[in-house]
Amino acid sequence: MRHFISVKQLTEQEILSVLEIAEEYRENKFHIKQELFVANLFYEPSTRTKMSFIVAQRKLGMEVLDFHTETSSVQKGESLYDTAKTFEAIGTNMLVVRHPDDTWFEELHQNAAVPIINAGAGKEEHPTQCMLDLLTIYQEFGTFKNLKVAIVGDIKHSRVAHSNAIALDRLGANVYLSSAPGFEDEDFDFPYVTIDDAVETCDVVMLLRIQHERHQQDSNSAKEDYLEHYGLTKEREKVMKDHAIILHPAPVNRGIEIDTDLVECSRSRIFKQMNNGVYVRMAIIAKLLLEWGIIDENVIEECQEAGFTKRINSM
Amino acid sequence: MRHFISVKQLTEQEILSVLEIAEEYRENKFHIKQELFVANLFYEPSTRTKMSFIVAQRKLGMEVLDFHTETSSVQKGESLYDTAKTFEAIGTNMLVVRHPDDTWFEELHQNAAVPIINAGAGKEEHPTQCMLDLLTIYQEFGTFKNLKVAIVGDIKHSRVAHSNAIALDRLGANVYLSSAPGFEDEDFDFPYVTIDDAVETCDVVMLLRIQHERHQQDSNSAKEDYLEHYGLTKEREKVMKDHAIILHPAPVNRGIEIDTDLVECSRSRIFKQMNNGVYVRMAIIAKLLLEWGIIDENVIEECQEAGFTKRINSM
Amino acid sequence: MRHFISVKQLTEQEILSVLEIAEEYRENKFHIKQELFVANLFYEPSTRTKMSFIVAQRKLGMEVLDFHTETSSVQKGESLYDTAKTFEAIGTNMLVVRHPDDTWFEELHQNAAVPIINAGAGKEEHPTQCMLDLLTIYQEFGTFKNLKVAIVGDIKHSRVAHSNAIALDRLGANVYLSSAPGFEDEDFDFPYVTIDDAVETCDVVMLLRIQHERHQQDSNSAKEDYLEHYGLTKEREKVMKDHAIILHPAPVNRGIEIDTDLVECSRSRIFKQMNNGVYVRMAIIAKLLLEWGIIDENVIEECQEAGFTKRINSM
Repeated sequence: MRHFISVKQLTEQEILSVLEIAEEYRENKFHIKQELFVANLFYEPSTRTKMSFIVAQRKLGMEVLDFHTETSSVQKGESLYDTAKTFEAIGTNMLVVRHPDDTWFEELHQNAAVPIINAGAGKEEHPTQCMLDLLTIYQEFGTFKNLKVAIVGDIKHSRVAHSNAIALDRLGANVYLSSAPGFEDEDFDFPYVTIDDAVETCDVVMLLRIQHERHQQDSNSAKEDYLEHYGLTKEREKVMKDHAIILHPAPVNRGIEIDTDLVECSRSRIFKQMNNGVYVRMAIIAKLLLEWGIIDENVIEECQEAGFTKRINSM
Repeated sequence: MRHFISVKQLTEQEILSVLEIAEEYRENKFHIKQELFVANLFYEPSTRTKMSFIVAQRKLGMEVLDFHTETSSVQKGESLYDTAKTFEAIGTNMLVVRHPDDTWFEELHQNAAVPIINAGAGKEEHPTQCMLDLLTIYQEFGTFKNLKVAIVGDIKHSRVAHSNAIALDRLGANVYLSSAPGFEDEDFDFPYVTIDDAVETCDVVMLLRIQHERHQQDSNSAKEDYLEHYGLTKEREKVMKDHAIILHPAPVNRGIEIDTDLVECSRSRIFKQMNNGVYVRMAIIAKLLLEWGIIDENVIEECQEAGFTKRINSM
Repeated sequence: MRHFISVKQLTEQEILSVLEIAEEYRENKFHIKQELFVANLFYEPSTRTKMSFIVAQRKLGMEVLDFHTETSSVQKGESLYDTAKTFEAIGTNMLVVRHPDDTWFEELHQNAAVPIINAGAGKEEHPTQCMLDLLTIYQEFGTFKNLKVAIVGDIKHSRVAHSNAIALDRLGANVYLSSAPGFEDEDFDFPYVTIDDAVETCDVVMLLRIQHERHQQDSNSAKEDYLEHYGLTKEREKVMKDHAIILHPAPVNRGIEIDTDLVECSRSRIFKQMNNGVYVRMAIIAKLLLEWGIIDENVIEECQEAGFTKRINSM
């Protein structure tokens, strides 16, 4: 795991190790006794991902450099590559990047002298969101084998859908897609079902946000009808299996993908997902720092609490 | 004091306790020996309020999450409510909110799982600004009883005026209002006086910034005449009582509400107000954390300096 | 050195002392054991300067206040002067300012109660960039005497050119200027040479960014021809002296001032410059804090590592 760029690079064991370390972090505090700087380079808006990265970084004791494109030399035309190399030059030990290009990391990850974490790449991948979704499912069911997971909504423009479908498939889950006409992704080889089939048969109903900002033109799905035809209404929630749960990466378009009253209902794990995001990001950061040798076990041993070292070593 | 939302909820004793703890903080350093996160959600521009909150939070040892609406999911339409619940979910222990709606807190404070501090609500309330104004007056006069306080300027659009008039009245001061035509607030039951009467008779002349950004249309008070007719000129300053002081929440429109030469004159407490802002905000934060049980006296005892614990306990 | 505003105020000895302390900081960690706040007031975009100031400040253990003009009271018309005095009032111990006015510091530095560092003044001065450029040259050649330094590009609009030419001249280097028609600065008394002469004869080729944002109208130098006629092409790099180096303050307009392949070539010190920026800024900050008596040697002694105190005392 040189960088954390794509779920495609992760083995089942690597994924499970991230989830396991994340749970370890929830239970035990752990500070890195070493001065480390991390820069968060977000070229697209973010609340959850960026803020939970910052919480994760501060919990680990890292110094956080908060970069804003609109007040930076990006305004003078500086590229992501030159920006990233600048942060390396001033002593940054790790980069977290979100960028609208689907493949922003290609040039960069070959030349980076520090580990890079993908916090969102266009409509292609969002691997840390995937890890927190996986953790939320794992907490519920203890396994991924033969779970039925429906990914519902704007599949075409959703990096969350892409990362999750690939990872869930690798972990042995059965992935189904459900979307309004025009939101399908033809290049994506999973079976499509209706929303009514999805809610009736699946263990996990993972809703997606409609990515208005990625649409080339106005969608042909009028907002007022969307919920009724393609979203999770209160009627559909009632036919879900007893143990089935609702996920959504948020921000939620209330009343469009999901009835507003369901956002905080008993099946909803939407805020649990956010909470899990802090711990999976801590796990990913720590794994990369260790694997790159930026920190070693001595730093960990100095501040270990409750068996953390053992767990890290056995990853 | 479940949240710190409105001066209307505060008893005289609670107000005085905030002022007393603020003075304690000025004299003694005090760190909370516990990892706590606070998020500052400012939906309107701020220099003084936001930065003095950050200084207060860092002096207390809190981790600060700096949220920017323009680079957050607010851009994707996320509401204040969902944003606040997101910060709760990722582990934030306290929220500080400024928002243009007069009543943004109504939905939120019922459902919040963490304490919320109002850092400005539309044109309705600005209770932490009020506390720092009160502290500045208290430092000068040692009491509020029978003090004559003139609040001068854009009463109608000023949340500072609303919070201060209510609190000063409760504390026994005599509040007078003075404003240009169109800037009166008809719903507000305090006597109006001319600026000339105000400067001659009052102990405190509290000027307000003209809230250009809240005006529906161009004011009928042309800028060039405003100072002469309604503002604090050098001539008017000369007729103030010997001990009388000038307050202004800032930013000052120099040459409009007040002659530019008076901003740093000997009667002015404008920069003293800002300094007091740090300490009243520390006091409010600490009181809420204690009252919610987020921190307890053990955390305080571990890092007490010079009798702080005793004072906190006797609030 | 009351403030760090202009290279004109610096003696040769003061410059060399900054470089020496910077090297000391690179080798030894040094934290100030005292709660100090610094505010970075950037009224123009910045990546390198701002972020390396923040890294420098955090490495020294300072609390950093990150000010954004677009979400501050600058939006309500507040001036730099009033903004700076506000930060003083809330307890800031040092200000770092970048502003588009050539002489923003004139009113401020007379009245400032805390040390101010100039992080860029219009097209006039950029003294901390100058210090890091000098350190990079000094690391290479061990002296400035009789070095030939060509400053190449948009001289007229470049604060980097102005600060560097003055300082290099004072230190005994021979400064040459080279620029496209319209980019000369008539008020600046150094000889002009062609880019071909510059690369053949100079020890240091210091390229400048074309300051598109400061041009009143479109330059008559079309972008497509600029590199060939006035920039550093691969052909020109080949005729540079064996030991000669390339500097550029960045961000680089790749393919305009310099062939993109040369940015990371063996002669390039562009990323080394950025790295040096962290340490010269630490040195400047520490010198000012000591000279103002904001910190004293006791604070330093408490956390000294490897002879730092001695060096500071002998400045």
